[in-house]
Amino acid sequence: MGVVVQTIPRAAPELISRLAQAGVATVHEAQGRTGCMAARMRPVWRGASIAGSAVTISAPPGDNWMLHVAIEQLQPGDILALAPTSSCDMGYFGDLLASSAMARGCKGLVIDAGVRDIADLQAMGFPVWSTAISAQGTVKETLGSVNVPIVCAGQQVMAGDVIVADDDGVVVVPHLRAGDVAAKAEARLASEALRRKRLAAGELGLDIYNMRPRLAEKGLKYV
Amino acid sequence: MGVVVQTIPRAAPELISRLAQAGVATVHEAQGRTGCMAARMRPVWRGASIAGSAVTISAPPGDNWMLHVAIEQLQPGDILALAPTSSCDMGYFGDLLASSAMARGCKGLVIDAGVRDIADLQAMGFPVWSTAISAQGTVKETLGSVNVPIVCAGQQVMAGDVIVADDDGVVVVPHLRAGDVAAKAEARLASEALRRKRLAAGELGLDIYNMRPRLAEKGLKYV
Amino acid sequence: MGVVVQTIPRAAPELISRLAQAGVATVHEAQGRTGCMAARMRPVWRGASIAGSAVTISAPPGDNWMLHVAIEQLQPGDILALAPTSSCDMGYFGDLLASSAMARGCKGLVIDAGVRDIADLQAMGFPVWSTAISAQGTVKETLGSVNVPIVCAGQQVMAGDVIVADDDGVVVVPHLRAGDVAAKAEARLASEALRRKRLAAGELGLDIYNMRPRLAEKGLKYV
Amino acid sequence: MGVVVQTIPRAAPELISRLAQAGVATVHEAQGRTGCMAARMRPVWRGASIAGSAVTISAPPGDNWMLHVAIEQLQPGDILALAPTSSCDMGYFGDLLASSAMARGCKGLVIDAGVRDIADLQAMGFPVWSTAISAQGTVKETLGSVNVPIVCAGQQVMAGDVIVADDDGVVVVPHLRAGDVAAKAEARLASEALRRKRLAAGELGLDIYNMRPRLAEKGLKYV
Amino acid sequence: MGVVVQTIPRAAPELISRLAQAGVATVHEAQGRTGCMAARMRPVWRGASIAGSAVTISAPPGDNWMLHVAIEQLQPGDILALAPTSSCDMGYFGDLLASSAMARGCKGLVIDAGVRDIADLQAMGFPVWSTAISAQGTVKETLGSVNVPIVCAGQQVMAGDVIVADDDGVVVVPHLRAGDVAAKAEARLASEALRRKRLAAGELGLDIYNMRPRLAEKGLKYV
Amino acid sequence: MGVVVQTIPRAAPELISRLAQAGVATVHEAQGRTGCMAARMRPVWRGASIAGSAVTISAPPGDNWMLHVAIEQLQPGDILALAPTSSCDMGYFGDLLASSAMARGCKGLVIDAGVRDIADLQAMGFPVWSTAISAQGTVKETLGSVNVPIVCAGQQVMAGDVIVADDDGVVVVPHLRAGDVAAKAEARLASEALRRKRLAAGELGLDIYNMRPRLAEKGLKYV
Repeated sequence: MGVVVQTIPRAAPELISRLAQAGVATVHEAQGRTGCMAARMRPVWRGASIAGSAVTISAPPGDNWMLHVAIEQLQPGDILALAPTSSCDMGYFGDLLASSAMARGCKGLVIDAGVRDIADLQAMGFPVWSTAISAQGTVKETLGSVNVPIVCAGQQVMAGDVIVADDDGVVVVPHLRAGDVAAKAEARLASEALRRKRLAAGELGLDIYNMRPRLAEKGLKYV
Repeated sequence: MGVVVQTIPRAAPELISRLAQAGVATVHEAQGRTGCMAARMRPVWRGASIAGSAVTISAPPGDNWMLHVAIEQLQPGDILALAPTSSCDMGYFGDLLASSAMARGCKGLVIDAGVRDIADLQAMGFPVWSTAISAQGTVKETLGSVNVPIVCAGQQVMAGDVIVADDDGVVVVPHLRAGDVAAKAEARLASEALRRKRLAAGELGLDIYNMRPRLAEKGLKYV
Repeated sequence: MGVVVQTIPRAAPELISRLAQAGVATVHEAQGRTGCMAARMRPVWRGASIAGSAVTISAPPGDNWMLHVAIEQLQPGDILALAPTSSCDMGYFGDLLASSAMARGCKGLVIDAGVRDIADLQAMGFPVWSTAISAQGTVKETLGSVNVPIVCAGQQVMAGDVIVADDDGVVVVPHLRAGDVAAKAEARLASEALRRKRLAAGELGLDIYNMRPRLAEKGLKYV
Repeated sequence: MGVVVQTIPRAAPELISRLAQAGVATVHEAQGRTGCMAARMRPVWRGASIAGSAVTISAPPGDNWMLHVAIEQLQPGDILALAPTSSCDMGYFGDLLASSAMARGCKGLVIDAGVRDIADLQAMGFPVWSTAISAQGTVKETLGSVNVPIVCAGQQVMAGDVIVADDDGVVVVPHLRAGDVAAKAEARLASEALRRKRLAAGELGLDIYNMRPRLAEKGLKYV
Repeated sequence: MGVVVQTIPRAAPELISRLAQAGVATVHEAQGRTGCMAARMRPVWRGASIAGSAVTISAPPGDNWMLHVAIEQLQPGDILALAPTSSCDMGYFGDLLASSAMARGCKGLVIDAGVRDIADLQAMGFPVWSTAISAQGTVKETLGSVNVPIVCAGQQVMAGDVIVADDDGVVVVPHLRAGDVAAKAEARLASEALRRKRLAAGELGLDIYNMRPRLAEKGLKYV
Repeated sequence: MGVVVQTIPRAAPELISRLAQAGVATVHEAQGRTGCMAARMRPVWRGASIAGSAVTISAPPGDNWMLHVAIEQLQPGDILALAPTSSCDMGYFGDLLASSAMARGCKGLVIDAGVRDIADLQAMGFPVWSTAISAQGTVKETLGSVNVPIVCAGQQVMAGDVIVADDDGVVVVPHLRAGDVAAKAEARLASEALRRKRLAAGELGLDIYNMRPRLAEKGLKYV
């Protein structure tokens, strides 16, 4: 506790932008079905779809002091990712901190705790994914750390990992894998476009994916 | 496990349409306050209001293979109803399966598990009620069954039962009771319209329903 | 059980209106970070922001009879606050009761249980904060009490306390403290407006609040 | 609601006793991995292991009146199974009802709600599986039904189904399948005894079940 | 926050001892089915059964400083009751604090949060009811208050209220009602003893309580 | 997915044994209040207290195939640690796997999912910490990985990390920190022994830790 790491790796902006384009569900599949945060991590308002490098925060329960420290470490395009050291649903973040983060070019916040001023956050267009919404504010008494590894909604996040977030939730991509995952995600999107057309035309997945023989082999019985 | 029932009973379209008209809360009352799924079953997007015959799916946790099998069994106007054999919040269903289901005339999905691509589902106008939203995808390795009885969010659903779903949640009507319940629901709606008018005019429920004597008899004291 | 208190104190309308203006998060801070209901208490639809005097209801699980009794006790501008005597997520309140409450000038409902007819509630513009949404209706068999102290979503509410509710949740202000809290909330809003401007201009909270010396004293290390 | 079915089918006592002998986990496997109640259903005290025919109860939330009605329907060896019509954790059952049930030869209670007097229940040797423990008592105001189908902790239970319960939880066996399941369970126990001996001697499951080729075929890599 | 009330009322030891004798479930009934904490409040070890005057603690999440302050306020026979100002499951209390509390004559702890060193607590014979068990320790940075009103597991507790706790959970009795409730509880115990004997002898509750006419009147049908 | 790492680091047995001696709560404090798994991770039976090197398992939901693979990688004194790739409460592990693990010298299992045959596990003296108990068995269809990093009940676990588990829960110590943490834990135990004696003799923590000046400085008021 009480450490701020000032230099972190970041994936290339072009890779980050391609991951944002692909979206959470596709990136998760492209990465071998890993990296997806728990389903309790939900957008505070719907319609945003972002990706960025994680500036991580490990904070005590009910204490948001480290958010101020972390904001100084932000570079344009970064995403704040906060995990409390123990389960907590208090409102760590509101419109003042959002103003500050936006002024530094921050793209959004992912937090395994609560946030508040949500009407303002939506009006400002600052996207937040959280596990709670609560008006109950926090104190500034105890140190935490910035840019150390955290576990956020069940996923390990290292500073500089790429976070992709949309209405489906949040996925974490280790920054060294960003290029590989982006490529695989795009391949997936291309093949999905084809399949979507065939499915929408009424062809069955059973036929498109040739599932019938394997279903029969496993013993599926039609009665 | 591993059974697909291909012939199921269905209520008459006219009855189904009358139940959709009545809505979930009224149908639940008309049916003697039974059939309501647990409150954790929520619409993925609000504003849809549907009814249809259930094509049921019993699926292993984290395995959506049977959805492809079930889609072949759909008739226009049907609703897919899926229950995993053990509690699971992974994303079983997304825009590709929705394209396929819509092509078969499916009216919507009710699932005691997670779904994904929710922005697409809303854009497509495909209504879904689920107990989770999660980008985390599933595998296709283990058989389940189609059109067997399932327990979905605390309610037994038989293939062909009428499912009614709106912003309040989901209710299940055994297909043989559809006519009776539709009639009772309509009677309820008529009497509610009257009472709504009187209540909106400022009359008290205490007087409209003549509750004062029974409250006094039970011992209610005004101080 | 079985008591209706007919005379309750109420804060002055002017104070109530100032508290509504300040909003839940600010009122909670102004009151010394107390009074905030648990995060599970959420608006049924977003965008409403109200304050009013509480008419409290203690109701048995699954029994909404006392709502009719409470509605008679409403004065224009009041807010209904209901807590079941044991955890319950059934739908105690729907469009009929909302019609009746609105006719009496009621501003909204806060309920540590479920509600239904939510599409109607939104269409009518009647704001509700609840801990569940459920189509499952209740009975009218067992007495409860009106205008007795209740514990609602973790907070004690006395009849006549001021309830403030918006998209962030719900906070309770004892009616005797309303003036003091309103004044403190307004002072807070004024100082926040200033700080918001500076933060939005890119100044850091670390500097505005002069946090660096205290962080150093606590041992924060930059690496 | 408000129905008591007085005649129910029951499996032969010899079959029931064989199922009790096999235990919950083995019966669940023998039945094709079905029938297991949700993990929230736990024994109030550990060490009991029972089986019996279900006398089912559908009860309103917070109302235990139907337990008295159900006790009259008990035959020696039966098990009471109660599901509230909506989620409820109040204490429906305590030492008085246990005295009454034991006097009728009842073997135990399975309840998707709360119980109380648990120190007494253990002292009396009356086994209970519940989803909550709560001192909060219930009322006797609203009818429910006895020996109708219920959904209890996620499983459908018909009156007369065999309930098997031990420290692992509860499984339901349709009474017509009792013989078949008992036979399969015993075959399983026999083969498990053999395998247990080999595993305890240090042989690996990988070899006993010949898993290595299939793992390799699926692509497992040792690094 | 930051207040220690040093003088609190206490019920007479003789009344407290009679309430302990009656037990939680009976006291709850005798008090008109009120005062019972939520079912998530469970004993850390089973078999203890206590009553005492509450010394209340309102503590910040993850901060146990006020426990040291409260221990100084204990008189022999008192019970510590702690509620965090926001939901928290960290381990506020362990064997060191238990040693200190026992040295002051404290009878036990009731806490709407976590505790640790539970093997030691049981070995020392210090009874604790909590809503979590967690090894994760807390800090001592932020003030709370002692002997102010708190809401603990859904129940309001005033300093000096009588807390009764056993294996069934915890109930709170306002200290001014202690005599009345104790008398009613004892009357209940006497009448229950009689009924227990008749029920154990095989008489039905239906007959002892003369329920049949009222069940018939409500419409119960035997089929 | 589908990788088995065969060589992992392990802390010296002497260090592991010292950590076991210190216990979970003390190790957690000695490590700077980090490493503690979430409170939902509980012992299946109480009284065991162990430490060992983690053999980690990442498994699909409802699929326990990788446990067989992992058992081959065990060395005497190791502890199995399993996390499903998505939340799952099925019973992955029972007496057969326990027989096999014990034959390899395994000291216990820590699993963020369910287990079964718990009466047997206790009788065999095989300690298990889990987040659920469930008789519902799993399949063997999909690959996972062994000795890769996992997140288990909110904590990152690397293969070879030291796991310490007792009645308070589970804490993870990175294997390179084992010596440092063991030394700090022992220092803590020594100083705690002294303080325990003073506290048990009636001295107050307020005095032993000299808290009064700092409480006064923070503004604590005695009234």
